[in-house]
Amino acid sequence: MNIAIVGVGLIGGSVAIRLKETKFCDKIIGVDKSQKNLDKAMHIGFIDETASLEDAIKSCKVLVLTIPVDAILHVVPQILDLVTDQVVIDMGSTKTNILNKIKDHPNRGRYVAAHPMAGTEYSGPEAAIPGLFKGKMMVYVEAFKTDEDAFEIADAITDQLEMRSCFMNADEHDVHTAYVSHISHLTSFALALTVLEKEKSQGRIFELAGSGFESTVRLAKSSPDMWTPIFKQNRENVLEVLEEHIKQLQSLHDSIATEDYDKLHKLITRSNKIKRIIK
Amino acid sequence: MNIAIVGVGLIGGSVAIRLKETKFCDKIIGVDKSQKNLDKAMHIGFIDETASLEDAIKSCKVLVLTIPVDAILHVVPQILDLVTDQVVIDMGSTKTNILNKIKDHPNRGRYVAAHPMAGTEYSGPEAAIPGLFKGKMMVYVEAFKTDEDAFEIADAITDQLEMRSCFMNADEHDVHTAYVSHISHLTSFALALTVLEKEKSQGRIFELAGSGFESTVRLAKSSPDMWTPIFKQNRENVLEVLEEHIKQLQSLHDSIATEDYDKLHKLITRSNKIKRIIK
Repeated sequence: MNIAIVGVGLIGGSVAIRLKETKFCDKIIGVDKSQKNLDKAMHIGFIDETASLEDAIKSCKVLVLTIPVDAILHVVPQILDLVTDQVVIDMGSTKTNILNKIKDHPNRGRYVAAHPMAGTEYSGPEAAIPGLFKGKMMVYVEAFKTDEDAFEIADAITDQLEMRSCFMNADEHDVHTAYVSHISHLTSFALALTVLEKEKSQGRIFELAGSGFESTVRLAKSSPDMWTPIFKQNRENVLEVLEEHIKQLQSLHDSIATEDYDKLHKLITRSNKIKRIIK
Repeated sequence: MNIAIVGVGLIGGSVAIRLKETKFCDKIIGVDKSQKNLDKAMHIGFIDETASLEDAIKSCKVLVLTIPVDAILHVVPQILDLVTDQVVIDMGSTKTNILNKIKDHPNRGRYVAAHPMAGTEYSGPEAAIPGLFKGKMMVYVEAFKTDEDAFEIADAITDQLEMRSCFMNADEHDVHTAYVSHISHLTSFALALTVLEKEKSQGRIFELAGSGFESTVRLAKSSPDMWTPIFKQNRENVLEVLEEHIKQLQSLHDSIATEDYDKLHKLITRSNKIKRIIK
């Protein structure tokens, strides 16, 4: 069985590295609009060959899509037009729009909406790492609309990646990712912008940056090409969580501005309940 | 030489652990208003004895203050009233108010304003760890007002902790820490509150939380007893950075709300410049 990795960056490359490790497939074919990225992926060695998307569809049983979500929206209907028994696994971060778009496609059953909840702030082929997915969650969305044989192949890949898995509907998925993934990136981008702006007048400001700052700002290194489309595709949920987040910040701000330190202490104590969730 | 650790929590305990490792002093005396914390510190073994503050001043050459900044503000003048040749090292996170308060004290020269840019989101004696300070920055504030012999002892301790060091004035220190430490905690507290609020209606929301979310929210586990006084003591700078941060979030929000994705892409690209600062 040959597998095409469409988008040889952080996610696609890390999938490929693992499938090579486990010898799950015969060949891994890299597809990417950037020849430079394909060259890098060949050089690193996680793909065996490169091909155009059309040729990859002909020669591969499985296509794993790890490109920005706007490109996924554009390309999935074209791929489904051409497939027969191939499996098309979409690993993008938003699902509602793409699922709406292909819901009546005659080959809908060959499509698997799967979102691996894993990543780093780095991008490109050189960001791909072994073990990226281990122990993380693969979310299947509207899996009941996927053909059984296609789902089984996708789930076998999830097993190869050593991931746990769960099922969600599209709305639920897009709300949840807005709250536990997309907003984290927005807060990091905003924090980076805040401090970089101040740096202009206070040159040495980063000398004091410690591990706490790094932790909250590291996601601000994430790719604008990957994240702009995510915010576009998940616009309504992202706006909702941003508004709630700004409200919470404003509430902290107001308790400091009015010197209501009892309220501030209560808000911090309430936020400490996050201990229940993360170790 | 005996050293008193006033506040046997994360910072004080980690100082003590390191000074025990290097055999820098004869005895380490624990001082804390919580008998429970003193018992834990004795049990863990990073203090040799416990004492009241008054007795510790009599029996120790050095007092390291690692208590909340409002308690520091309250206790430093009292300590300075009682010292002769002892060294009082204040490791708190804000400096302007305390330096103003003691600026005319006859024993001002025995006081060292030192802020170790190190920590974790945990608190209490059991949070103390070896190596917490290694390679991190110790900021000395208004060091020129400290007696030379007192500064040398404080700096020897900084060396023992394997820290780098730099000098700042109080304003500069309090602005910089607002931007690279205090705001990170506020964004984490707000993010935790945002998601915990949503969890009430969307029970499974944390199932999808990955390493990105953990990274941006982990500081929300920090102690309200430690952080409320920091925001109080550094109120003006904290309000300034919060206002700037809300403005940046609002700008991201507006670019999504108006579907100005070119602007959004530019903002994210600009935030990526943080790569220049953090590896």
